[in-house]
Amino acid sequence: MRVGVLTGGGDCPGLNAVIRAVTLKGTGERGWDVVGFRDGWRGPLTGSMRPLGVDDVEPILTRGGTILGSSRTNPYADGGGAERILEVLAAEHVDALIAIGGEDTLGVAERLCREGVNVVGVPKTIDNDLGATDYTFGFDTAVHIATEAIDRLHTTAESHHRALVVEVMGRHAGWIALHSGMAGGASVILVPERPFSIEQVAGWVQSRFEREYAPIVVVAEGAQPADGAEVLQTGEKDAFGHVRLGGVGQWLADELARRTGKESRAVVLGHTQRGGTPTAYDRVLATRFGLHAVDAVADGDFGTMTALRGTDIVRVPLTEATAELKTVPAERYAEAEVFFG
Amino acid sequence: MRVGVLTGGGDCPGLNAVIRAVTLKGTGERGWDVVGFRDGWRGPLTGSMRPLGVDDVEPILTRGGTILGSSRTNPYADGGGAERILEVLAAEHVDALIAIGGEDTLGVAERLCREGVNVVGVPKTIDNDLGATDYTFGFDTAVHIATEAIDRLHTTAESHHRALVVEVMGRHAGWIALHSGMAGGASVILVPERPFSIEQVAGWVQSRFEREYAPIVVVAEGAQPADGAEVLQTGEKDAFGHVRLGGVGQWLADELARRTGKESRAVVLGHTQRGGTPTAYDRVLATRFGLHAVDAVADGDFGTMTALRGTDIVRVPLTEATAELKTVPAERYAEAEVFFG
Amino acid sequence: MRVGVLTGGGDCPGLNAVIRAVTLKGTGERGWDVVGFRDGWRGPLTGSMRPLGVDDVEPILTRGGTILGSSRTNPYADGGGAERILEVLAAEHVDALIAIGGEDTLGVAERLCREGVNVVGVPKTIDNDLGATDYTFGFDTAVHIATEAIDRLHTTAESHHRALVVEVMGRHAGWIALHSGMAGGASVILVPERPFSIEQVAGWVQSRFEREYAPIVVVAEGAQPADGAEVLQTGEKDAFGHVRLGGVGQWLADELARRTGKESRAVVLGHTQRGGTPTAYDRVLATRFGLHAVDAVADGDFGTMTALRGTDIVRVPLTEATAELKTVPAERYAEAEVFFG
Amino acid sequence: MRVGVLTGGGDCPGLNAVIRAVTLKGTGERGWDVVGFRDGWRGPLTGSMRPLGVDDVEPILTRGGTILGSSRTNPYADGGGAERILEVLAAEHVDALIAIGGEDTLGVAERLCREGVNVVGVPKTIDNDLGATDYTFGFDTAVHIATEAIDRLHTTAESHHRALVVEVMGRHAGWIALHSGMAGGASVILVPERPFSIEQVAGWVQSRFEREYAPIVVVAEGAQPADGAEVLQTGEKDAFGHVRLGGVGQWLADELARRTGKESRAVVLGHTQRGGTPTAYDRVLATRFGLHAVDAVADGDFGTMTALRGTDIVRVPLTEATAELKTVPAERYAEAEVFFG
Repeated sequence: MRVGVLTGGGDCPGLNAVIRAVTLKGTGERGWDVVGFRDGWRGPLTGSMRPLGVDDVEPILTRGGTILGSSRTNPYADGGGAERILEVLAAEHVDALIAIGGEDTLGVAERLCREGVNVVGVPKTIDNDLGATDYTFGFDTAVHIATEAIDRLHTTAESHHRALVVEVMGRHAGWIALHSGMAGGASVILVPERPFSIEQVAGWVQSRFEREYAPIVVVAEGAQPADGAEVLQTGEKDAFGHVRLGGVGQWLADELARRTGKESRAVVLGHTQRGGTPTAYDRVLATRFGLHAVDAVADGDFGTMTALRGTDIVRVPLTEATAELKTVPAERYAEAEVFFG
Repeated sequence: MRVGVLTGGGDCPGLNAVIRAVTLKGTGERGWDVVGFRDGWRGPLTGSMRPLGVDDVEPILTRGGTILGSSRTNPYADGGGAERILEVLAAEHVDALIAIGGEDTLGVAERLCREGVNVVGVPKTIDNDLGATDYTFGFDTAVHIATEAIDRLHTTAESHHRALVVEVMGRHAGWIALHSGMAGGASVILVPERPFSIEQVAGWVQSRFEREYAPIVVVAEGAQPADGAEVLQTGEKDAFGHVRLGGVGQWLADELARRTGKESRAVVLGHTQRGGTPTAYDRVLATRFGLHAVDAVADGDFGTMTALRGTDIVRVPLTEATAELKTVPAERYAEAEVFFG
Repeated sequence: MRVGVLTGGGDCPGLNAVIRAVTLKGTGERGWDVVGFRDGWRGPLTGSMRPLGVDDVEPILTRGGTILGSSRTNPYADGGGAERILEVLAAEHVDALIAIGGEDTLGVAERLCREGVNVVGVPKTIDNDLGATDYTFGFDTAVHIATEAIDRLHTTAESHHRALVVEVMGRHAGWIALHSGMAGGASVILVPERPFSIEQVAGWVQSRFEREYAPIVVVAEGAQPADGAEVLQTGEKDAFGHVRLGGVGQWLADELARRTGKESRAVVLGHTQRGGTPTAYDRVLATRFGLHAVDAVADGDFGTMTALRGTDIVRVPLTEATAELKTVPAERYAEAEVFFG
Repeated sequence: MRVGVLTGGGDCPGLNAVIRAVTLKGTGERGWDVVGFRDGWRGPLTGSMRPLGVDDVEPILTRGGTILGSSRTNPYADGGGAERILEVLAAEHVDALIAIGGEDTLGVAERLCREGVNVVGVPKTIDNDLGATDYTFGFDTAVHIATEAIDRLHTTAESHHRALVVEVMGRHAGWIALHSGMAGGASVILVPERPFSIEQVAGWVQSRFEREYAPIVVVAEGAQPADGAEVLQTGEKDAFGHVRLGGVGQWLADELARRTGKESRAVVLGHTQRGGTPTAYDRVLATRFGLHAVDAVADGDFGTMTALRGTDIVRVPLTEATAELKTVPAERYAEAEVFFG
């Protein structure tokens, strides 16, 4: 039996831990050939692949990124679809695929599976916004890095009587902001799920200054003001063709400075949140996902993906991966609001 | 309303995060007086306490240990019992207690509750061996620290063609060994739940040397050989009155050196695993436990404790805290065995 | 004898370690009263001060920022000058001052000393640009944080075949860029001392892509293109009144994307570089500076400041603090150039 | 021109950074062939070597250990001496050697050089006890790791009113103890250079308990009591054939418990101090040593080694490497004593 593995979409600490677990269990306990396809779906479309053995994966557990490379190639949009992939897999004698990726990658996996490709999925999203699983690997690492940064910023804010706005990842879901803000003792946390009132934010910041603590505002990049003010997102181009760094974060810092009369600065954590060695939590989760994906392939349980439920790894249909964006519910946000101001 | 909080048993990163959350939500949203009792159950036995306000708890989120101190005082063994505690609470006008602790502390809390003391519990065990909750705070930090140490030891082992034995905490349950060993890419993981064969361990180590990788053996302090060899535990005194540091870890290093003919060294992580700043994961969990304990007190839901189920915080009877030691089940250990040798 | 201590200018990990060493040695071995003046020179101008004892400084060794607060108040510009300070010190019976700060703070200290104030200086600049001392505390911490960020970005760059531009601190001197770039394995390092050719940078980036490694460009915020292109600095306002985040860093990312046809992103580390717990190196250096400043005061050796020469702490005239900006010399930059491209 | 590089003695973070710098500068700027000899002097005795190119060394900057392996092989004791090495180098067309190692490795290098082998040395000792250089790489990393551990232990000590003894590396020189103890805020620091009075240590610990702070004693493994009590060192076998873990550290913990009546525990940091990724400081120092060693070879300046003097890398005769053990001088120890008790 020959099994291929691939990684699609944005990178995420833990991808290599999945590849390692798949390879060691697949080649060891199962006695399979394991091959890695390069650059997401481009691999099985073009046949670009490499054999994976113990020596390839032994040193990668602690490494961020993916040794297989990644891309956003879509077999349906970029040519060939299931037909082309079935041809390549047949030619290469690959019996099944383990596809590690987010909503897009798993959406393709699900469609390919309906069209005859043997696929098992492993969910990956640094934003933790997949409804089918309690957590995904990479999220804990992102929260860890953001929290370390917030820890460092507290002393600067306090020594200089300054407000600091920390912009973290999260276009559509505020999980990283919620967790890192709660872990870092933020004065205000702003998430995309909940448009904010700039007056209220300024009030919280002001009251914090009055109590002689320096305010830290943690804001997800996708958070937006409720009153409809136009705020560019990080990475967008403004009217003058300049790419904005620190969209909502910089906007907030400017507004807070204006409204409170205090210095206010933005820090945009950016790509530092998604690189580097995974936390122990993410390594364990990623490793277990890899092991259970091998079992699903061995059982011929295609069209499923691994998921965490409590402390158990379970299998759920791939359709669940794209069914629902898991956003921060009101009661979770209310927990954090206790600490605002 | 006046509510007291106390911390009992061994220290654990996250205790201060619970105290902070209880104080900020209790004094803020609820409008309570919150007081901290000193040194576990000794506080409510002797009336040793201090008021807790915003300024006391604002800076403690990131600190290890407990600002209230801890002890292993048992109100039933050390005098006074529920009667004495009821007197002190009445005299000090304290209406309810939030007791943060492990099996012993919560066992006392449960009995006190039956005898009329209004208590809500918050579970704490660095070993993660409480059956009633998916995880307890402090565990993730311990695993994180152990994993960082294992990461560092890999390069030493490889450069010197040496076996390294890392002894981690866990007298009765091997969770820290299992998670840090899996996260750290250990060659062998040994847990108290599963007496080990020294022949088999030496075989795995030997095969690892032959494959040109240096073996790292992660062993819980409570793991024991299956063949009945007498192995002292770390902290025990030997026949000559010397306290042993590195009981089973040192024993393994000696045996592996003898059996494989290779250098072999033990590292005992000891107290470094339970001190210092908590991980972001533990800060969030501890904070949420504190917030939900306040809700339980507000609801008069005494005799319960907070617990994590999936991503939810729920309430369970205090009796569950002591009902069952949560040990590593065979199927979880089997996941790790894929990587042995 | 009564001695005051103050901290001026931007914050810097290690300030509290100096305050602690001054207080413990001053009150202990010397038997002095030690007082802390608040917010830089504002303290001795207004008499805002607090006594410092063991309990105030015992827990601050590991903390970033300064427990005394800081400001950019200039006694000569903001009123009162030496005359006012001499009055306040006389009224408060303060015999001598230890002033911890950078070029501005020490420049004032030097002038005050000429006008009769007993001052000893301790140099502080995160940028490491004071000529009179081999290193200043805070610099090692800034380099450490920047290097950790670069380490994390490598895997992202490689997994996505992307150039990443990391903008670090350094308006006039490129020490942080030089050290963190060398420690982080940067493909190109750009410093203010050396205007860069964007063609050459694009060439190095391109050659790196061709060799299948992802390029990381580390750029000091004060670096500028040689051809006179106008590049705003981080924090400046553009023609439309928008504050720029990521001045030269974002400009480089845009130019590299245009010239190489590859994705290119900027990360601006900003204030995370100057907050949080100091490295062990900085704690030792700051502590030794504090101890030796106490000796200088005890010896009546005013008008001097502490400096590191090799492994020794020596005293140099305060005039040296402002004599010369220590910039990256050509031969040090040449060391790094070996790794470009 | 063909140049070989080798690493001898105990491992040390930064070895790979030297190998990388030698390879990149040697093959790049100089146009040499660079080869790596395996396992210290065993390599040039047996001809065990591998070519080193960009792809071999690009990813190793951040890795602990040495990709070349190490050993304590001595060409004079283990057969062959200079004669054998000259033969191998001639056969392999290797014109010069860069030997990275400590006192033993460099002592051999010096003798080989006198007997006709072209050698340049790079000093390496985690203990920082080489007199010819201000610092050696690896030392900062060891101090960093020990300081992190001490930071973590503070909160445990304080929450439990317990003394903690931290045993760090240093058989003959107390530099790691001195720096990590000063950086970690230790109550007492004990070094091999200065036999200690256990009564005095117990007095300091007692006074610290009375001031309500928990004592942390940092002890170098080679420190010994002044009164001649027999204390085994970590790794030695006792009269019963048991290897001791925590020689002086465990002895101190036992004595302090007996003399103060308080709980007292030992933590032995052991091999965690010498593995894993180097600090930024050590990466820069190691890289610069490698670059300057290449220059020395290019200049034909054999019999020299690189050394740090202030911020400059200079060349000194190899004889200086073994001339003098650099121990902690009385005045440096006196700096730390300010904080005792």
